[in-house]
Amino acid sequence: MRRLFKNATILTMTGEEPLRNASLVVAGAEIFYVGTEPPEGRYDETVDLSGKLLMPGLINTHGHAAMCLLRGYGSDLPLQTWLEEKMWPMEARFGAEQVRWGTALAVVEMLKGGTTLFADMYDHMDEVARVVEESGIRASLCRGVIGLGPEEERREKLAESVRFAEEWSGAADGRITTMLGPHAPYTCPPDFLGEFVAASERTGAPVHIHLSETAFEVEQNVRDYGARPVEHLDKLGLLDRPTLVAHAVHLTDAEIELLAERDVKVSHNPGSNLKLGSGIARVPEMLRAGMRPSLGTDSAASNNNLDLLEEIRLAALIHKGNTLDPLAVSASEALRMGTLYGAEAVFLAQKVGTLEAGKLADFIVLDLSAAHLQPQERINDVISHVAYSAVHSDVLDVYVDGEPVVRDGVCTRLDEEKVVARANEALAKILG
Amino acid sequence: MRRLFKNATILTMTGEEPLRNASLVVAGAEIFYVGTEPPEGRYDETVDLSGKLLMPGLINTHGHAAMCLLRGYGSDLPLQTWLEEKMWPMEARFGAEQVRWGTALAVVEMLKGGTTLFADMYDHMDEVARVVEESGIRASLCRGVIGLGPEEERREKLAESVRFAEEWSGAADGRITTMLGPHAPYTCPPDFLGEFVAASERTGAPVHIHLSETAFEVEQNVRDYGARPVEHLDKLGLLDRPTLVAHAVHLTDAEIELLAERDVKVSHNPGSNLKLGSGIARVPEMLRAGMRPSLGTDSAASNNNLDLLEEIRLAALIHKGNTLDPLAVSASEALRMGTLYGAEAVFLAQKVGTLEAGKLADFIVLDLSAAHLQPQERINDVISHVAYSAVHSDVLDVYVDGEPVVRDGVCTRLDEEKVVARANEALAKILG
Repeated sequence: MRRLFKNATILTMTGEEPLRNASLVVAGAEIFYVGTEPPEGRYDETVDLSGKLLMPGLINTHGHAAMCLLRGYGSDLPLQTWLEEKMWPMEARFGAEQVRWGTALAVVEMLKGGTTLFADMYDHMDEVARVVEESGIRASLCRGVIGLGPEEERREKLAESVRFAEEWSGAADGRITTMLGPHAPYTCPPDFLGEFVAASERTGAPVHIHLSETAFEVEQNVRDYGARPVEHLDKLGLLDRPTLVAHAVHLTDAEIELLAERDVKVSHNPGSNLKLGSGIARVPEMLRAGMRPSLGTDSAASNNNLDLLEEIRLAALIHKGNTLDPLAVSASEALRMGTLYGAEAVFLAQKVGTLEAGKLADFIVLDLSAAHLQPQERINDVISHVAYSAVHSDVLDVYVDGEPVVRDGVCTRLDEEKVVARANEALAKILG
Repeated sequence: MRRLFKNATILTMTGEEPLRNASLVVAGAEIFYVGTEPPEGRYDETVDLSGKLLMPGLINTHGHAAMCLLRGYGSDLPLQTWLEEKMWPMEARFGAEQVRWGTALAVVEMLKGGTTLFADMYDHMDEVARVVEESGIRASLCRGVIGLGPEEERREKLAESVRFAEEWSGAADGRITTMLGPHAPYTCPPDFLGEFVAASERTGAPVHIHLSETAFEVEQNVRDYGARPVEHLDKLGLLDRPTLVAHAVHLTDAEIELLAERDVKVSHNPGSNLKLGSGIARVPEMLRAGMRPSLGTDSAASNNNLDLLEEIRLAALIHKGNTLDPLAVSASEALRMGTLYGAEAVFLAQKVGTLEAGKLADFIVLDLSAAHLQPQERINDVISHVAYSAVHSDVLDVYVDGEPVVRDGVCTRLDEEKVVARANEALAKILG
């Protein structure tokens, strides 16, 4: 199958200016050509994208998709009340059905919003993997493990995390990759984290972990282990493994330096960090240290949406306001955080994240015709339009591995109405 | 004309819980009834809003609509470079045509996003008023005046500001109200501001002015006039007039107290303040002092959109992150900022801002069916869905004075394609 997409404005995200009247040629699952002079030849399908923009699919590097069922539950409460009285009791009732339909609801929202790859950490991960298989989206999955229970339970959970990572790696025609998911330094004792390090060395699977989301947990770490979380994880050898840390809100200069030195990947979650009152991560300092933070939504229970365009916008806005520096994070940088840096964060930068010949054909098409994306004369920067003004409903088409998973704003593989109905039913069942 | 809207979820914004399976009856331009037991009788039109949400129209209390033409121009530059090298030279080329079509483009975007009332400060205001007349939107307009030129020019501009306020007050069947618009303390010398105070006393027109947007202008005010801007304006008697101040980012506790005491209205512009690196206004402190800050987008040149739902979301998010307090500004409070407090800010709270019998029928209908607004079981708070997850494309219908100005997402009075084309042409003409 060879497809020609022509007459588009293309953001390749390789650092070059937007291409005008440009073409993308897709052969099978791969990008064959991107530029302004497409090769002659026969195409199975030719798509005219006049007035439209084509760019890499968005990459959401941290979340808990199934928690989509809890969107708008207990909003605007103090963090501990929200967690202890709302989230945990309800999550304790989650079974396979809740995870399946909560995740499906999340995937519908993500796909329609232009996300082609999401990283997920949760329980009942086989269900999550099956939704990924069915929906056509790409995912980096891990079984999240809280290691505060008895020894035997911990052992089982670790084994389950490893089993999942090995069993599903490369599944769904390679669309699924896996990691190991020790939840956080404050929920996994040091020796248990050490076992994850060993498992990561043995299996080659990277580690996905929460880090320094709140000031409270940093203090707790110092109290319990005599070190701030970054130093703590480094001492345990965890940062020598390929590692993705989520949040990283409360960091000292020295911690940023160490994370940069260890090439640790960061998932910056601006929406969730704001909503929970966790704080504003030091993204400008990370960028200056040479880090390339990616973007995540966290769960819909703490965001309350899974709209990566919104995270891009927040990343481009809040650091300017917070540091009183209008140059803190540019629109281009925010778009890179939502694409290329996302691919790097889940260790897939060789395959996705930019539009280049040889990479996999994960891309999205945005309609630029609406009033909020006008004017489009030469002074009106299209990168700025995407970062500051586009919303998820501007996403028309979404391709993963060269195949359409959303067309004209409708999921091609998932039945959206059914997913919405089943998600509501699955939630209703546990409300009693 | 009597219209019955039934089976809706209704947010009246009067402080009560969302009404389920509720009805709104509109008689002519007014709300006749809102509640769950609508009066029997004949209706000229009955609209079934099952699965939809009805709430007051959104109110945008600060902006410069015509600058919509400059969306995405010179984004991500230092503030002074952006202003002096980009905005001012281009604005100097604006004539009536640019203001007309820039404003029309802005009004299309605002209406489709659920804004039923906008406050505007600019030049060529007769053109702005004509767009308001034609489009069906409601507006509080003022001719903005920079008083740094020669005496004669200042005198002409003041006269023009007063002429406009008097001539257009109550026009468009009462949809247009007016204010006087001295631009800011740093662009209007004290004696000139005094003349505005006198004009406001004479005409009864309120004052709309920029205040303490940047730390720089506060320092300048102290240097030039020996007082911070709030005290400065108060000494000039300006705060004794009904006054709406835009931005109010850099305020001391004493200034907040004084503004509260004088019942000064504030337009909080989170998107613009973040993007320009101006800072984060002390909204939680304002609320604690009893103030009721409203929301504004500022212009699309510094935002870069006119989406009041986004400002509501930013207001609900950024203060939590900035103060590390998840209770800083609740979803309900942010929605009030975008509706009722907006009506108060433009001195129209007797007429709009909530859904109550006797008020004007300015309201919007949101489609709640999409995945990003699910689930909708009893634990999933709909106020939270609107504040944190809804986007402008969820707005289906918009009514002003009981008449539809947007239906099924399409402007009924303005020809959107024509507006987009003319706006681009008007901009192209001044690019040379």
